[in-house]
This record gives sequence, C-alpha cells and structure tokens, in this order.
Amino acid sequence: MNVIRTVKELTSVTKELKQKQHSIGFVPTMGFLHEGHTTLMNESKKYADILIASIFVNPLQFGPDEDFERYPRNEERDLQIAEAHGVDYLFMPTVEEMYPDRATVTVTVQNRADVLCGRSRTGHFDGVATVLTKLFHLTKADFAFFGLKDAQQVAVVKGLVDDFNFDTTIIAVPTVREKDGLAKSSRNVYLSEQERNEAVHLNQSLQIGKQLIIDGERNTDMIREKVKKYIYANTSGQIDYVEVLAFPSLTEAAPINQQIIIAVAVQFSKARLIDNVIVDQQGSLPKASV
Amino acid sequence: MNVIRTVKELTSVTKELKQKQHSIGFVPTMGFLHEGHTTLMNESKKYADILIASIFVNPLQFGPDEDFERYPRNEERDLQIAEAHGVDYLFMPTVEEMYPDRATVTVTVQNRADVLCGRSRTGHFDGVATVLTKLFHLTKADFAFFGLKDAQQVAVVKGLVDDFNFDTTIIAVPTVREKDGLAKSSRNVYLSEQERNEAVHLNQSLQIGKQLIIDGERNTDMIREKVKKYIYANTSGQIDYVEVLAFPSLTEAAPINQQIIIAVAVQFSKARLIDNVIVDQQGSLPKASV
Repeated sequence: MNVIRTVKELTSVTKELKQKQHSIGFVPTMGFLHEGHTTLMNESKKYADILIASIFVNPLQFGPDEDFERYPRNEERDLQIAEAHGVDYLFMPTVEEMYPDRATVTVTVQNRADVLCGRSRTGHFDGVATVLTKLFHLTKADFAFFGLKDAQQVAVVKGLVDDFNFDTTIIAVPTVREKDGLAKSSRNVYLSEQERNEAVHLNQSLQIGKQLIIDGERNTDMIREKVKKYIYANTSGQIDYVEVLAFPSLTEAAPINQQIIIAVAVQFSKARLIDNVIVDQQGSLPKASV
Repeated sequence: MNVIRTVKELTSVTKELKQKQHSIGFVPTMGFLHEGHTTLMNESKKYADILIASIFVNPLQFGPDEDFERYPRNEERDLQIAEAHGVDYLFMPTVEEMYPDRATVTVTVQNRADVLCGRSRTGHFDGVATVLTKLFHLTKADFAFFGLKDAQQVAVVKGLVDDFNFDTTIIAVPTVREKDGLAKSSRNVYLSEQERNEAVHLNQSLQIGKQLIIDGERNTDMIREKVKKYIYANTSGQIDYVEVLAFPSLTEAAPINQQIIIAVAVQFSKARLIDNVIVDQQGSLPKASV
C-alpha cells in the first residue's frame, strides 16, 4: 500500500493509472476505520482494478459547534486496516493541502439538503459535496462507494454526480451493523456503557416503522409518532428527528410505488447517532446500488 | 466535423477519445461565432489532438432582466465557421439536455465575483462556473481556452480549476480586436452606427489608463477618474464601472510587483460592452497563459 499525502503526488499517480487503462474504485472516509468502511473496500474490489481510499476529516462539513476537533483519529490503526483490506493507495492529506487558499468556489446543494441531518447541520452537505468534487477529480474515480447508513449523503452525492455530469458511478452499500443491530459508526466510541445498551433500540424502532409500512400503514405522521414513542420509551437520548420520506428524492413520501426511508437522529450525551431503513412497498431491502 | 446534441453521445465520444490517449482541447462558446472564438480554436490546435467546441446559451448565467432570450443566435453560420476552423466535435445541447431536472447542486463563486461584472450581474459567475463544471466533465478537456476580453471570467475559471482540482489547464488568449481597436463581441451587432463609432473610445480610454501606469501613476482613483472622464467625453454610453485591480486576484491593486487590470463596462442603448487591458509594472502585455 502506498500512502500519499500531497495533491501533486496523487494527481501524478492517477494520471498514470488512467494512461494504463486501469479502472479506479474510491472509498472516501474520515478515518477511524471500522467494518462499515472495510465493507466498502471489499465492494470496490468487485468493481475496479485499483482501490484508492482517502482519510480526511473535512472541516468544511463540520459546523462551528460540532466535533471537528475531537472527531476520533487513529492513523496507525487505520494504516493497518487499510493495508489489510487491499487498499492500493491511501490518500491522507492535511487540511492545508486540501484547502491551501481562501476558497474561491464551493458547491452549494440546492435540495435534498434541507431535511434530515441537513436541517440541523447547516452547510454540512455543501461541505461534503465540495470535498467530494475535489476528491473525485484527484482520484479520477470510475466508482465511488458510500454506506447507506448516511442515506442522505448517498442521495446528495447521487444528485452531485448527475447534475455535474461526473463520470463516476456511485455505489451505495447496505449499512453494516453490530450483532445486536446497532449501525457501525466511528462515533459509537463516545457512548457510555448504558447508552451503548440503549442504542440498540434505534434499529429496533426502525424495524417497528418498517413493519408498519409492510402491514399497509401509509400515514407517515402515525409511523413517525410510533417510532418516536418507542425511542423515548427505551433510550435516554434526545430525538433530533424521525422522518419518513421518499428515497432518494427525500421529498414527502407519496403513498405508493416508491422506496421510503425512515431515518432517525438521536443525541446522546457525547454522541449524535443516525440510522435508517429503506423499504419499498413490499418491505424488501434496497438494492446495493441506487 | 461531428455535431453532438446529447450528453449521452458526448460522454461516449470523449470516453473513447481518452481510451485512445488523445489529448482534448475545449472551446466553450455561446455561439454567434466571431474572430474572438476562432482565435481560441486556432490556439487549441497548438495544444491538443482533438478540438471540441460547444455552443450553449446558458440560462444560468443570465439575470432575469438580461438578454438571454434575445442573445444573438445563428446556428447555420456557426456550423460553417466551426467546421472551417478545425472543430472535430461541436456540442450543441438544448437547455433541457443540460438541465433536465430542478438543480440539486450548483457552484457558488465565493470571491473574485463581487467586483466588476459580478457586482451588477448577481449570480452570473455562479452560472458560468456551474455550466463549465458540467462541460469540463463531459468533454474531459485537457485544455480549455478563454478570451481575455472576459478577464473576470478567466480569473473565476482559474479559481474554479485550482480550488476543485480539475485536471484541465486553462489557457487565456489575448483579446481580438477590430482594426480600429474595438474588442470583438457577439453583442457588437446591437450597436447603432453612431454607437459603433463611439465604441472605439473604450479601448482608447484603456490605453490612456495604461499609459498612466507606465508613466508611474499609482493612484488608482486618479486613473479611474481619467478613464471615466474620457469615456463620458467621447461616448453616449452610461458607465457601469471603471475599475483598477490586481490581476488575477481581482483585489485592490497593490502599488508594485503585480499585474494590474483596468476594466470598463459601458451600457449603450441596446448593448452593454466590456473591455480591459492588463499591464504589469513595465506596461508590457500579459502572457497568453495566466
């Protein structure tokens, strides 16, 4: 595995890879790698000759009161995990390397960003779309892999690629979970022991919502209320949102013939967790690629 | 020359060109081609194997009160001119082809856009940067060519490419002029005969400003006033702006060791004309590439 820290070196490497007609798979991460990330790496191996991963905690996607400074980092461990999962090139730039000057241009996400996490995290998806625009160019990715745990991110990135005519195919990969159903997340380390036990109920609340849809319930307010009630009854967390929307448009869910996402965000003492389930009218799981 | 009207066909053509390791030069235009455009086409031939030009009057870069609807168009003549100047592929999409859906994402230009034309044309450079992001992706351009008549556009595009790490080199080409010095522009056809005679004084006003700099004048207010006074004395146009700025940063001009742009915009009865001159401390002409 080659570790690359500069834009100049990555540009030169990917130019040569494309000249040799290699296909490139790309897994962007903020590090502190877990099975959610390594699943994306494994998936890339099925699609592309070369696997490039990036580790970059992107300040542009953190609000002033968010956890940019204390976002968990463990470079040594990440290097081992990336190497063990077949990463060919690991791009680990500094903030100065990615944003050398006062920004002249940024990407602005016009819709799909004003709901769910976008509502409470102003500018978050602008930051995500801006850094991904840079990273897609630098990596010359033919395929890029994203976990469906961040379903709104998948929807926004799909919009980014479509609207800007990127020559990159977005592959959305199902959420990886702990044995008890908790979605894997770098932020799970912030949970107290009691909160960790409670956190399992996020997924269980989503299963309740999913079953309601399978059983024919189409009143989204009703579904939201039942999911909320379950979370409040079983955790000490504060609900940021419980939403039932069409996916991937993230518009108000129409009653028929659409994939529907039930998405939750819950604030625990030191960690804000998100989770979701995507169901179609028969309640089946979403396809790996959207 | 191949005329391409769909995103799908262009994507397929450029993918094949890159697989064959051809270098691609790109000249984006809004059509109604003149010597300013054909000079860019000739320049591309020096840099790249393949020349792609586009003709697309981009609604995103026109304000609600601007001339999108009546921007001059002449497809048949443009086809002949493009073919005669060695264009290999001419991309002429409809608005629906370029913007099929409600926009999910756009590019926002954070600076260099709040001066000169950007001040009176709100959102203009966001529209320029958004359509160029799409066109750079679709054409897979190794080089893209822009005329220095739109010097602010050159500065913004340079920022776009640098900040987003596009793998496209921007080549800025000196302004092409009529024999009497008027900068060539598609909008010149809107001038009355009297205005056409007056319009020559835009360039002459810039020459006066340039000579002041060469002679050692560093008071930019003084330069602005002398240029304005000349334009008011010799034309019936209304001055939109006369600015003296550092180039390409478009910040307040520092007194030494910088290229300086003197830029003017003048509104005639049916046409708003722009022109500029770029001088360094010795008063020499700018390099072809910035």
